[in-house]
Amino acid sequence: MAGGGAAASALSSPWRALLQRALDANAHLKHSTFFQLATVGGGGRPANRTVVFRGFQEHSDKIQINTDARSNKVIGEIKEWPLGEICWYFTDSWEQFRISGIIDVMDGSSPDPAKLQQRERAWFASSVKSRLQCLGPSPGVPVANDDHVKDVHIDPSAGPVDAYCLLTLDPEKVDYVNLKSNQRLMFTRTQEGDESGDWMARK
Amino acid sequence: MAGGGAAASALSSPWRALLQRALDANAHLKHSTFFQLATVGGGGRPANRTVVFRGFQEHSDKIQINTDARSNKVIGEIKEWPLGEICWYFTDSWEQFRISGIIDVMDGSSPDPAKLQQRERAWFASSVKSRLQCLGPSPGVPVANDDHVKDVHIDPSAGPVDAYCLLTLDPEKVDYVNLKSNQRLMFTRTQEGDESGDWMARK
Repeated sequence: MAGGGAAASALSSPWRALLQRALDANAHLKHSTFFQLATVGGGGRPANRTVVFRGFQEHSDKIQINTDARSNKVIGEIKEWPLGEICWYFTDSWEQFRISGIIDVMDGSSPDPAKLQQRERAWFASSVKSRLQCLGPSPGVPVANDDHVKDVHIDPSAGPVDAYCLLTLDPEKVDYVNLKSNQRLMFTRTQEGDESGDWMARK
Repeated sequence: MAGGGAAASALSSPWRALLQRALDANAHLKHSTFFQLATVGGGGRPANRTVVFRGFQEHSDKIQINTDARSNKVIGEIKEWPLGEICWYFTDSWEQFRISGIIDVMDGSSPDPAKLQQRERAWFASSVKSRLQCLGPSPGVPVANDDHVKDVHIDPSAGPVDAYCLLTLDPEKVDYVNLKSNQRLMFTRTQEGDESGDWMARK
């Protein structure tokens, strides 16, 4: 079994359909868009935290995550060693996606206009409520309780605040398990440096 | 705010009470005992997977995880670089525990009689149903669907099968966040090489 041919678009990456199905099946659960992102910090220490899925970057498979540039240590560590593995467990459909790839960090200090633009696009794609999280008290954690938000205001047409940092994870390998059907599929990207890429799948 | 004095027992480690409260508050959810374990594999690649909490080792804070020795690569990688970070998100109470520490691997090949005994104790402490998972088809993933179990039998009084491997993670740091109350607490162990340890907590 193999993924689409060389002409396959990102949207037809074979694991994307499985992921979309899982998102749909678990959409009634607020936490279905939460996953755990593992990275490697100073001294080779693994780090693992819950973050929120912010959709895919346009025309690609890159997974977007909003973070807070005030978590300087984390951002620094990821810039230093940009490998990550997402573990995304869907609690209702009993499906697990392990997605590993390279992480790109886009904060306001990026010298690359394309990245600044991408960061701005992701900022405006986020809800005003979620933008307010960058003004919240706890950098680095999803804010489920937005009580603090009552006293904070933000101009909906204003661009990204300094604290806003966009991460994108570019998947290279996706390990899928369905614990109900005992189905396991492993997807591996066979082309490097291609926005859409090509994928091989095996059971 | 500081954890108990030098005489504090493991059971009084200050974060244990928070974790027990979260387990109780989320006990109605099957997945409340699932968490994500991050480790570092070959080439410094982060690895992240869902595993099941199998309780604490007797008289200690060490967190027990059952794995399958057939996941040789994983076991080898953890033996090589025994650092781990658990990310445990409780979906109903909106609490996150990030627990980092050193992982000990106990498979049947251990030359240490104490470890073999510990592995055997953890084996018998597991339900017969969960022991059957070591005979299942998918090493390394929690088995929520036990249909395959129907055709497999195991003698309840028989000791651990070859494929059974016990991991224990000895916590050194616990980062707790409550997303409902916006409370954050960081616990750090101040003594090394002590079964119970001593803990410092700060907000």
